[in-house]
Amino acid sequence: MELLLLSNSVLPGNGYLDHAVDPMRALLKDRRKALFVPFAGVTVPWDDYTARVRQAMAPLGVELQGVHTLDNAVDAVGRAEVIIVGGGNTFNLLKCCRERGLLSAIAGRVRGGAAYIGWSAGANLACPTICTTNDMPIVDPGGFESLGLVDFQINPHYTNQLPAGHQGETRNQRLAELLRARPEMTVIGLPEGDWLEVDHGQTRLAGPYDAVLFRAGQEPVTLKPGPTPLPTTF
Amino acid sequence: MELLLLSNSVLPGNGYLDHAVDPMRALLKDRRKALFVPFAGVTVPWDDYTARVRQAMAPLGVELQGVHTLDNAVDAVGRAEVIIVGGGNTFNLLKCCRERGLLSAIAGRVRGGAAYIGWSAGANLACPTICTTNDMPIVDPGGFESLGLVDFQINPHYTNQLPAGHQGETRNQRLAELLRARPEMTVIGLPEGDWLEVDHGQTRLAGPYDAVLFRAGQEPVTLKPGPTPLPTTF
Repeated sequence: MELLLLSNSVLPGNGYLDHAVDPMRALLKDRRKALFVPFAGVTVPWDDYTARVRQAMAPLGVELQGVHTLDNAVDAVGRAEVIIVGGGNTFNLLKCCRERGLLSAIAGRVRGGAAYIGWSAGANLACPTICTTNDMPIVDPGGFESLGLVDFQINPHYTNQLPAGHQGETRNQRLAELLRARPEMTVIGLPEGDWLEVDHGQTRLAGPYDAVLFRAGQEPVTLKPGPTPLPTTF
Repeated sequence: MELLLLSNSVLPGNGYLDHAVDPMRALLKDRRKALFVPFAGVTVPWDDYTARVRQAMAPLGVELQGVHTLDNAVDAVGRAEVIIVGGGNTFNLLKCCRERGLLSAIAGRVRGGAAYIGWSAGANLACPTICTTNDMPIVDPGGFESLGLVDFQINPHYTNQLPAGHQGETRNQRLAELLRARPEMTVIGLPEGDWLEVDHGQTRLAGPYDAVLFRAGQEPVTLKPGPTPLPTTF
């Protein structure tokens, strides 16, 4: 399996998906027929969201269709060379995929050789569950299990900072609660600007920042970007 | 019904629940037999959590039992004069209450005259759903419907600030997504340090800060603390 899992879509001072273009090119190779899954978009119309991503990926020669426009989305997933899942609200994304029978279709197709690109909610969807999302539970997705294409959980937009003076839980406290309730999980806190490249069972961290690995009963471990695969395969 | 719904438990420079003592006293009147629901606590043992709240409420003469220690919690809820629900993880709180059959028991008892005190997750639990929690979905609560003792949603720890340089959604963006998906909802963004006093259908905002009222298709409205009831009853 080949996946590109990005923390987020925009870096300060950069255009939409700018920082993702080079890793996308490396992932795509000669694949060009892509399906876009816009269901994490809630306040943006899915056509507009698809157009925005199409424009950002045009320099890569990608031919991109919105999965919401197709009469038989499951069949189309089965023929796609690339599946791209955008960010937004993770609960809405999972609910819409589940209702349309797309979870097993996407997982099967990526296991069968399609490339998977996801950012933010789209990166979370590739994990066993969406239990590490930061999003508000605006709709009930009918279960938290998701694609399970990797065997770790991503916490996108990872930071341990709080707004000044705020008393709410820090991200590390939230992840400590998660690992108390779900000690079998491994979590990668993926800061904005970073991404994970998953290539046939090996996961590599890339981007400008250190990430953090969380496991139950252990102190958080700093992960350095670089060519060495992460210790995240079980 | 009489409820006290607090955004949070601690203010900077103050002791645990210090800012809640005066409004608790006003709510309690001559009620003294209280049940504490500690299920939002995930990394803190429920006995420790109960002891901490017991100590904080001792100056009020409250006799407090942890609902987790009782053989028949549903019966005990039916006899309680006060039900107190602490903060922590809202998903864990709702799951544990649902599994023990406590949702309808608590709702029925509060409708029957018991006072309800909740902070953070405990304030969210009093709402129709937990869809406005900021917490991480560490466990599946088996549906997002909660007590429905008020007909609006509370967003506790409300702030629209992000940590410096962070690109994730602001709270107002998250609430705009919620109201797109659930346009029937009314949300009160309740800043830390504030609380709502609900007394027989009238809701009053108290504390040092303005809150914010969110409704679908409308600009957010600033709510001022004071004696005037809020426009939140439908």
